[in-house]
Amino acid sequence: MQPADDGEVTESNAAERLRIVLVGTTHPGNIGAAARAMKVMGVSRLNLVSPQYFPHAEATAMAAGADDILARATVCQDLDEALAGCQLVLGASARLRTVSWPVLDARAAAQQSFAAAAGGQQVAILFGREHSGLTNEELDRCQGLLHIPANAAYSSLNLAAAVQVVCYEWRMAALAGRAVPHEAAEPWATAETLEGFYRQLEQTLEAVGFLDPANPRLIMRRLRRLYHRARLEQTEVNILRGILTETQKRLRGG
Amino acid sequence: MQPADDGEVTESNAAERLRIVLVGTTHPGNIGAAARAMKVMGVSRLNLVSPQYFPHAEATAMAAGADDILARATVCQDLDEALAGCQLVLGASARLRTVSWPVLDARAAAQQSFAAAAGGQQVAILFGREHSGLTNEELDRCQGLLHIPANAAYSSLNLAAAVQVVCYEWRMAALAGRAVPHEAAEPWATAETLEGFYRQLEQTLEAVGFLDPANPRLIMRRLRRLYHRARLEQTEVNILRGILTETQKRLRGG
Repeated sequence: MQPADDGEVTESNAAERLRIVLVGTTHPGNIGAAARAMKVMGVSRLNLVSPQYFPHAEATAMAAGADDILARATVCQDLDEALAGCQLVLGASARLRTVSWPVLDARAAAQQSFAAAAGGQQVAILFGREHSGLTNEELDRCQGLLHIPANAAYSSLNLAAAVQVVCYEWRMAALAGRAVPHEAAEPWATAETLEGFYRQLEQTLEAVGFLDPANPRLIMRRLRRLYHRARLEQTEVNILRGILTETQKRLRGG
Repeated sequence: MQPADDGEVTESNAAERLRIVLVGTTHPGNIGAAARAMKVMGVSRLNLVSPQYFPHAEATAMAAGADDILARATVCQDLDEALAGCQLVLGASARLRTVSWPVLDARAAAQQSFAAAAGGQQVAILFGREHSGLTNEELDRCQGLLHIPANAAYSSLNLAAAVQVVCYEWRMAALAGRAVPHEAAEPWATAETLEGFYRQLEQTLEAVGFLDPANPRLIMRRLRRLYHRARLEQTEVNILRGILTETQKRLRGG
């Protein structure tokens, strides 16, 4: 466990390691309402990936006093930038995927996220577009899905309302004081380290001739799911990449 | 416990005994957003005490498909009418009263309300005005206060967001004991399947030249630890062995 500045993990410095990531938000009012939902629960780091309009007067109006969250928000070009340094990435999802993925309800996800952040990890929770959510490629970046168990007959949860529920559960987890920091023997791999590994894995599988050229994604998705479930440590990524590098050399006759 | 129509208490008929009561709401948009927040969590009875504007186009717009809740909503002259027949009344309150009153957090309040409704009681949860909340006289009508533990430095919880959190907790109480389905039930790999995989992995790594001949076990132990942590499914072992088989063929120049 990484010690916090004052030698003690407090709720607020755990919150400093949580980033809420809104992907492709269409309505700026929702960004403001999400900022308000965050602040009221003591969460303050907001990353915006390709928002349709930001900054925007409607965002500021809906933030209603949480405009400091908007002022500190980072607008990112892509998910790589938004997730830089993250060791735990969860994606909010209303629907089930074709390939099954680990699913946590909002409560369990908040408890896990808080425990990770309290233990020194950088954590991101992703929320997708108002109408279409996160794409499969974006969900592939997530180690787990966060599901808010809505009414099946009407599951139209507003974006800010979803952020509200998740940040509320985060606060409940923080206040419960029952966070048991998950101690890794070694540091967990970051999001960009994992992407580097997946790229090399895909290149190697192509060289080996294992990927179906018609649908290379399917196998890669299955493999991502497996490794996400394991949660790779940095050293493990080094070992796996070492194997791939040696394999690539041999295949080239090196 | 009063038996339900079909002799069994279901989540939906318990919800029929819960009424959400909004007192003196100023902005009609908040009534619509509250209706949406309710419906998404399977709650449908809405009583409005002296709303400033209702019905109103803004309420309908914000309800976004939950307009049936608005159509069924009862506009009441006073609290007596709104609470008629209720056996448990809880009032949402952001601040503490001068006279101490039983206070429940939203989770405990939802659990208690659901248990009461499932047991046949009529239950009401009151939400006050946007700026001033419930008056002391209105709180006097409540057997307990419901408190959402917001950030003390910024406790400006939007009315619809408060309704969202409470209805979410109601639904969580209703669903308690029913787990969110985790992973699809693909069979886990058996111990002997795993050993077969580890043997082939070791052979392949030898062929690639990745294992230290002096201590081949170290890397294998790290890899076992990783895959054990993931808990491999049978299909995943098939994929991984497929990759190894192709790699072995290529290395032999096949």
